[in-house]
Amino acid sequence: MSNTIRVLKGFRDFLPVEARKRQWLRAQMIKVFERWGYEPLETPTLESYDLFKGEVGEDEKLFYKFKDLGDREVMLRYDQTVPTCRVVGQYSNELKFPFRRYQIQSNFRAEKPQAGRFREFVQADIDIFGVASPLADAETIAVSLDLYKSLGFKNVVAVINSRDLMKGVPYEAIVAIDKLKKIGEDGVIADMVSKGIDKDQALKYFDYVKNIQPDETLKTIFDYLRVSGFADDWYKFDPMLARSFSYSQGPIWEIIIPEYPSGSVGGGERYDGMMKRITGRDIPATGIAFGFDRTLEAIEICGLLPELDISTQVLVTIFSPETRNNSIGLSINLRRAGVRVELFPDDRTKLEKQLKYANAKNIPYVAILGPEEVASQTVKLKDMKTGEQKCLPVTELISIF
Amino acid sequence: MSNTIRVLKGFRDFLPVEARKRQWLRAQMIKVFERWGYEPLETPTLESYDLFKGEVGEDEKLFYKFKDLGDREVMLRYDQTVPTCRVVGQYSNELKFPFRRYQIQSNFRAEKPQAGRFREFVQADIDIFGVASPLADAETIAVSLDLYKSLGFKNVVAVINSRDLMKGVPYEAIVAIDKLKKIGEDGVIADMVSKGIDKDQALKYFDYVKNIQPDETLKTIFDYLRVSGFADDWYKFDPMLARSFSYSQGPIWEIIIPEYPSGSVGGGERYDGMMKRITGRDIPATGIAFGFDRTLEAIEICGLLPELDISTQVLVTIFSPETRNNSIGLSINLRRAGVRVELFPDDRTKLEKQLKYANAKNIPYVAILGPEEVASQTVKLKDMKTGEQKCLPVTELISIF
Repeated sequence: MSNTIRVLKGFRDFLPVEARKRQWLRAQMIKVFERWGYEPLETPTLESYDLFKGEVGEDEKLFYKFKDLGDREVMLRYDQTVPTCRVVGQYSNELKFPFRRYQIQSNFRAEKPQAGRFREFVQADIDIFGVASPLADAETIAVSLDLYKSLGFKNVVAVINSRDLMKGVPYEAIVAIDKLKKIGEDGVIADMVSKGIDKDQALKYFDYVKNIQPDETLKTIFDYLRVSGFADDWYKFDPMLARSFSYSQGPIWEIIIPEYPSGSVGGGERYDGMMKRITGRDIPATGIAFGFDRTLEAIEICGLLPELDISTQVLVTIFSPETRNNSIGLSINLRRAGVRVELFPDDRTKLEKQLKYANAKNIPYVAILGPEEVASQTVKLKDMKTGEQKCLPVTELISIF
Repeated sequence: MSNTIRVLKGFRDFLPVEARKRQWLRAQMIKVFERWGYEPLETPTLESYDLFKGEVGEDEKLFYKFKDLGDREVMLRYDQTVPTCRVVGQYSNELKFPFRRYQIQSNFRAEKPQAGRFREFVQADIDIFGVASPLADAETIAVSLDLYKSLGFKNVVAVINSRDLMKGVPYEAIVAIDKLKKIGEDGVIADMVSKGIDKDQALKYFDYVKNIQPDETLKTIFDYLRVSGFADDWYKFDPMLARSFSYSQGPIWEIIIPEYPSGSVGGGERYDGMMKRITGRDIPATGIAFGFDRTLEAIEICGLLPELDISTQVLVTIFSPETRNNSIGLSINLRRAGVRVELFPDDRTKLEKQLKYANAKNIPYVAILGPEEVASQTVKLKDMKTGEQKCLPVTELISIF
């Protein structure tokens, strides 16, 4: 009701140029995911608060939570992992295991808006349900590397570790170690101490984690990646990779694009325990969530975005109300032949202004149908780049596109 | 945190089979919209309540409204028309007019759940901004008919009227007339009376509307549709079409699929006035919203859904941990050749169970790599429909798909 209303802070509109890039990336992701046998899943934007309660640790303060008209405590989807656990439990009789699914939807977190952080953001998840073998963990990492390879990246690294190897280390210490890159070793120790861990003990935890060696599970994963033909420097063990989710267990990993400055573009883990809590059943689960926005940013930073040429090929102008029907007919015939056509939707706008519009929108050709052309059953076609004009019979025009 | 948590009432999960249908319909719609020069737009799920306040009449009771952590009154997107008015106002310097956009996103209304009504549902909108000519209204109707024609429908009707022709009729009477099909003539009169209109006057309004004749604007629209080559019975004038939105003005229309029982599959109107209220500027606006779910239902009712064959072509099994790497390598090579492959992600599952999985999932081929095949550099390929098995050199296998 006011001309000062803007988009909410931390939220975004995507105008056509940006929206097209997003459509393109989504299609690329789907192509790779389906090549590996993953199937689409969609869950609602709104979920019961009970579903997420207690699953994401202190990040619960970021929930978009409210009471609906039926006085139910509901919230916007915080991530896609938790709702998928619900789905797998709810439909376990219909689904065939191993069940592989991908999901590319918006998630919502009331974060402080800052560069590269938004309150509504898209994640692309792939997960495998029903398999405890490390081959499942390895596969989702292989899909990740295949995805970024397909997108044209020359450098990608899957950094891999295992929570199983940190079993004596309390969760608070793991959360602190997860911040190592941001706050350094001293910061990590201070963080542990602030959580009530004795300083000597904190140093011991740090040292213990630093000296972790890969176990059989991790060796199987590295073997899978090697056999899959990925370059040696596309995957590596890092004992200091910790991840901050309380539900992570077994293998954990993150995908790094060295040229991208704002953190990992994807991260994953095994989460059999959370699945059991939510469904009451033993259904092993593992997978990875890709940051859609971050991936798109990385693509632009690395200059990997192709030209997305799906816009209008020709503008059919309307010379005057008298020739209007001829222009309508021409636009219909061109579309029938598969050409992407805009008809100027006004018969009282000066031709000059119509040409200006074509120019501003980079439409490569303009078709003009004045009284002379109508009389001779021709069309004047103007090439907007060269300025060249030629008169063509209508039938010939179609063959140009 | 409990195994009894289900999807919220009025909301839906889309498992792979349904999700694939939705992906297909979305792609079909985009193809048609882009053929007419419409460009994609996305707006956030969350908007300021101020934006929608007062724009949708009594339906405001259906808003999903709450206070966010910053104490702002926010709400889930109720429709796509109002946010697009905001966008067009906010970015009017960047956009080129006439601006055509399509938008296919979820909207949220706290309706009583019933057959064909959901609290989260997808709408596909196309609109033209910056043009007052009826050619713009006509175009969006023509796109609608082209869309349903492209989807394979044999019968579609654009029912058309104009609010301009009801200028002496109060909004309450228009809302009552909009219910004619549901509650009949007596019901409509009773509805008007219940809103405080004198019975004689109510009968007069009804009679007045019944005798409306098309004006020049409507004649131009019908002319456009005729010249576009649509069958005569694909569009018609109906003086009793009223639409219930308070912001509708000028031409109004709905798209009817005769075989679809639950109401129109799309509806539109001109709404220059709302645009002015929201942006403070004179930017003419017209367009239509298609019910995505209803359209998909109509497609299924009319048997127009094609076979969506994009699932896995071959399951590569793992015979044993010893031959695991051979199976991984084979799956990678097949994918490199463009084949959609699942590798069974466990090397300790019996082959029999792996074959059962392929069967349950209708995967047409299974590749088996036992010690013999590894030794002879061949693959056993099983056709799951015929049961036929043959041994092939790895190089030959790829040429089968």
